[in-house]
Amino acid sequence: MPDGRLLIGNKRYSSWSLRGWLAVHLAGLDVEEVLIPFVRNAGGGSTPAIAAATPAGLVPYLEHKGARVWESLAIAEYCAEQAPGLWPEDRAARAVARSVSAEMATGFRGLRQAMWFNAGRDFAGLGRTPEALADIARIERIWAECLAAHGGPFLFGARFGLADAIYAPVVGRFLTWQPEVSATTRAYMAAVRAHPLVDRWYREAQAEPDSWLLAGYETPPGA
Amino acid sequence: MPDGRLLIGNKRYSSWSLRGWLAVHLAGLDVEEVLIPFVRNAGGGSTPAIAAATPAGLVPYLEHKGARVWESLAIAEYCAEQAPGLWPEDRAARAVARSVSAEMATGFRGLRQAMWFNAGRDFAGLGRTPEALADIARIERIWAECLAAHGGPFLFGARFGLADAIYAPVVGRFLTWQPEVSATTRAYMAAVRAHPLVDRWYREAQAEPDSWLLAGYETPPGA
Repeated sequence: MPDGRLLIGNKRYSSWSLRGWLAVHLAGLDVEEVLIPFVRNAGGGSTPAIAAATPAGLVPYLEHKGARVWESLAIAEYCAEQAPGLWPEDRAARAVARSVSAEMATGFRGLRQAMWFNAGRDFAGLGRTPEALADIARIERIWAECLAAHGGPFLFGARFGLADAIYAPVVGRFLTWQPEVSATTRAYMAAVRAHPLVDRWYREAQAEPDSWLLAGYETPPGA
Repeated sequence: MPDGRLLIGNKRYSSWSLRGWLAVHLAGLDVEEVLIPFVRNAGGGSTPAIAAATPAGLVPYLEHKGARVWESLAIAEYCAEQAPGLWPEDRAARAVARSVSAEMATGFRGLRQAMWFNAGRDFAGLGRTPEALADIARIERIWAECLAAHGGPFLFGARFGLADAIYAPVVGRFLTWQPEVSATTRAYMAAVRAHPLVDRWYREAQAEPDSWLLAGYETPPGA
């Protein structure tokens, strides 16, 4: 019998769910996965079954050994306590890992609005609003600095950690919308996409039924 | 000689700075306070001196014993490592404390846009947009649940902790805009406002020079 459950949205659409799902799997928690498909286009908060099943009306939501945890960053910290080593061991590196993770979780609204997460589409060349491009420039700086400081292929070295989990959906957006990015960024994107857990998420996203598709996420901007 | 420095914006306006400042003081870090006044109304990111001095162009920003930390939640976690006890000791309570803190840091945009932080004004009765009222209802539920579960007067019991630091600027917004709230909420607001560190912040905010005032934050909506 598992120790709890993880509620997520569609793997095709729910970038936040991907973060929590990766953290839980990196930590090796034994929880049942419960997927609640979104029923409208306005995002997770508008799906009644999610509102009814979670404290904040949001996925991901983790129940584990009596603890209730929501919000990607809180789930990440919970997982870090359960499985040491998911944040960098060095105090200063760990501080930067948390800083860039929080910067992602609280910001980059321009990118998120213009280039939404869709694990099954190719919207190459679209979505390039000035706000999205400014966010992408900042994200490329963050990745380049972390990769240079720790040697890659992941943000803080050889191991795919929580900061990579937090940025994995950004990699997904870049794969779908294909903004012009540096060779360093492309190498990092390839490393994240090839990680077994990320690859599994994409395969499972592509196996979701057509009846779960939402027109608002499938129609490119301007169409 | 101090162990580093904490960069913040105006105490009158910078709700995010208040979070980081409280965390740093709760942890007892010995850092120099460097206040950079905002020079325009569009928020911290638009002040060139802040953009030049910080990794993400944002305050608060902490440098401590060689570590660089930005974003309120990352600063909170850094401080929690330096001074154990700032998060609840119980695993499940700590998970909720982090969840509601992250929910604040990433959300409540309706409240933030309609009822901005101004430690020196009385905008009683204004700003009551539907989005702000929905956020306030959720915040009141969070506070009521935490206070009931842990006995108050602070969210997780007798000690003012990091979750209280994260919500202190929300208390400040409520004090300025005075939405209709429950007696439970009013009691929590009074407890937070009376905390010596919060009181010090307000006194120092009121001592800031008139030349730092920004019209966009001083003019009530609709005026």
